[in-house]
Amino acid sequence: MELHKESAISCSSAAEGYLIEKMNEIKIFSPATVANVSCGFDVLGFCLDSIGDEMVIRKVEKKGIAITRIEGFDLPYATELNVAGVSALAMYETLDIDFGFEIEIYKNIKPGSGIGSSAASAVGSVFGMNELLGRPFNKTELTAFAIKGEALASKCEHADNLAPALFGGFTLVKSISPLQILEIPTPDDLYATIIHPQIEIKTSESRALLPQKVDLSDAITQWANLGSLVHALHTSDYELISDSLNDVIVEPHRSKLIPHFDNVKKAVLESGALGAGISGSGPSIFSLSKSMQTALNVKDAIENIYSETGIKFEMHVSKINTQGVKIIE
Amino acid sequence: MELHKESAISCSSAAEGYLIEKMNEIKIFSPATVANVSCGFDVLGFCLDSIGDEMVIRKVEKKGIAITRIEGFDLPYATELNVAGVSALAMYETLDIDFGFEIEIYKNIKPGSGIGSSAASAVGSVFGMNELLGRPFNKTELTAFAIKGEALASKCEHADNLAPALFGGFTLVKSISPLQILEIPTPDDLYATIIHPQIEIKTSESRALLPQKVDLSDAITQWANLGSLVHALHTSDYELISDSLNDVIVEPHRSKLIPHFDNVKKAVLESGALGAGISGSGPSIFSLSKSMQTALNVKDAIENIYSETGIKFEMHVSKINTQGVKIIE
Repeated sequence: MELHKESAISCSSAAEGYLIEKMNEIKIFSPATVANVSCGFDVLGFCLDSIGDEMVIRKVEKKGIAITRIEGFDLPYATELNVAGVSALAMYETLDIDFGFEIEIYKNIKPGSGIGSSAASAVGSVFGMNELLGRPFNKTELTAFAIKGEALASKCEHADNLAPALFGGFTLVKSISPLQILEIPTPDDLYATIIHPQIEIKTSESRALLPQKVDLSDAITQWANLGSLVHALHTSDYELISDSLNDVIVEPHRSKLIPHFDNVKKAVLESGALGAGISGSGPSIFSLSKSMQTALNVKDAIENIYSETGIKFEMHVSKINTQGVKIIE
Repeated sequence: MELHKESAISCSSAAEGYLIEKMNEIKIFSPATVANVSCGFDVLGFCLDSIGDEMVIRKVEKKGIAITRIEGFDLPYATELNVAGVSALAMYETLDIDFGFEIEIYKNIKPGSGIGSSAASAVGSVFGMNELLGRPFNKTELTAFAIKGEALASKCEHADNLAPALFGGFTLVKSISPLQILEIPTPDDLYATIIHPQIEIKTSESRALLPQKVDLSDAITQWANLGSLVHALHTSDYELISDSLNDVIVEPHRSKLIPHFDNVKKAVLESGALGAGISGSGPSIFSLSKSMQTALNVKDAIENIYSETGIKFEMHVSKINTQGVKIIE
């Protein structure tokens, strides 16, 4: 385990040592992620393997950052209006170089799905540029750039999807300023099942449901569960993971926005999952299971419920991705 | 790491297997403890080595529990009014035996000091009886009995001092019902320095200062710190332990009751300690340091401040006690 503690301020100095590699173009896979994870609201997240965006990052003579291709979803080409563009610019502005980058985005993660769509974009561009530059920045520094892109989408600076997308596995964002990201161990046999109901939850509506004040007794329950979950991940104690996956603060409010949430959660637990909750701010629902078979059983159980609702949905079953964003070509 | 998850209800059946050992009398050391540990309000605790009560537990023909000697502090002899007596009775009532126990208490931990005085008494009697009976109960079951004694002193059922006194090291009380106690690893070079100002803080006054509601943003900071502290203890990351020892929920309110708290904390940190905070509900202040030498430097720094205040005080410097309550004769 490593503690990554760097302030964004130090990034420009770290960049001085970059190398211009021979490689001029790479294709990367930038994974979807689950933030909050029940008891870890705003701090915890984990990384998925089976769904993510692909992006091509290319070194070009023309200075600056240009988004040259977007497939999958309708997103802005203007660099300063595009999440991947903004995070790329945040890094680019710290560099003293006489060339630029083009970015192609092959978007698989639907914006607004609750599984880190904007984080994947924000992470992909800076990870790819960093690789082409010979890795002048560490992952915490990359997170600091990506936060700028994420902020464009979510209107606030947070890293609970960015961190698992960059580091892989489970991450705990201890603080944003200074940025401190902890890598929590991932037990070997942990699998996620995700349902993404194809509905739109307005961010403003989801935010309005968050209580400004919470009962101290509930807060104590929540931090007991989070402390316990961190311990359970360290000790690969699946029963304790299950006991810890409870959210008494946010889920009671936000779950109302997700159709059939209670039924899905009940069916998921009856199918043997360790726990379930809202992925990020929804509408996706995540669950964790001890084996791929259980994760597949959970998928069947959710499909049985959702196929009768008339609501379109997508499902993902994935091993926890311990690598995070990676080069694929 | 083991998960101890037992409900108190199961204790009577577990007791059926007890053995009457030849041993008729033992002397035990029941240690002082620090609860809350800054970010772990109501759930976290650790065990001290250099101060604790001694107790003699004796098997006698006469049925029932009798407190036969108390030295050190003026405490009630009536079994049902004495913390050690009440926890002993809670265990005794689950047993089907034709003999009783006498308890002698040599009290070193001043009641109301904030370092687990009542917990040491509550733990000592049930630990000693369990040893004389051949250990029919596990430590979580013993905690469930001791909670009854602790409740006599503190008017509510909590285990954040009991758990470290019984298990040693750092413990996290995940929940009271069912009782779930987690043993968090203790880094090798961790030492505590404690100052106990000889003042009385009324429990009612200390309670009244606790907010019923807390800002969600503060709660998030607190659970980020607790999750981080659990991770830091698992990874023996002293810098991260230091970064995590912050309490934004309780300390800002309760520290007002402790004379010169801010000065002491400042001096402690300047002396190289990893962190400092209120021990339990005070008035004791704890700090943690990476080496015995630093813990001693911290002691000097605190003495310099407190010796000028006119307030009487006691100090303790202790390695973290990873064994907990133990037989000494």
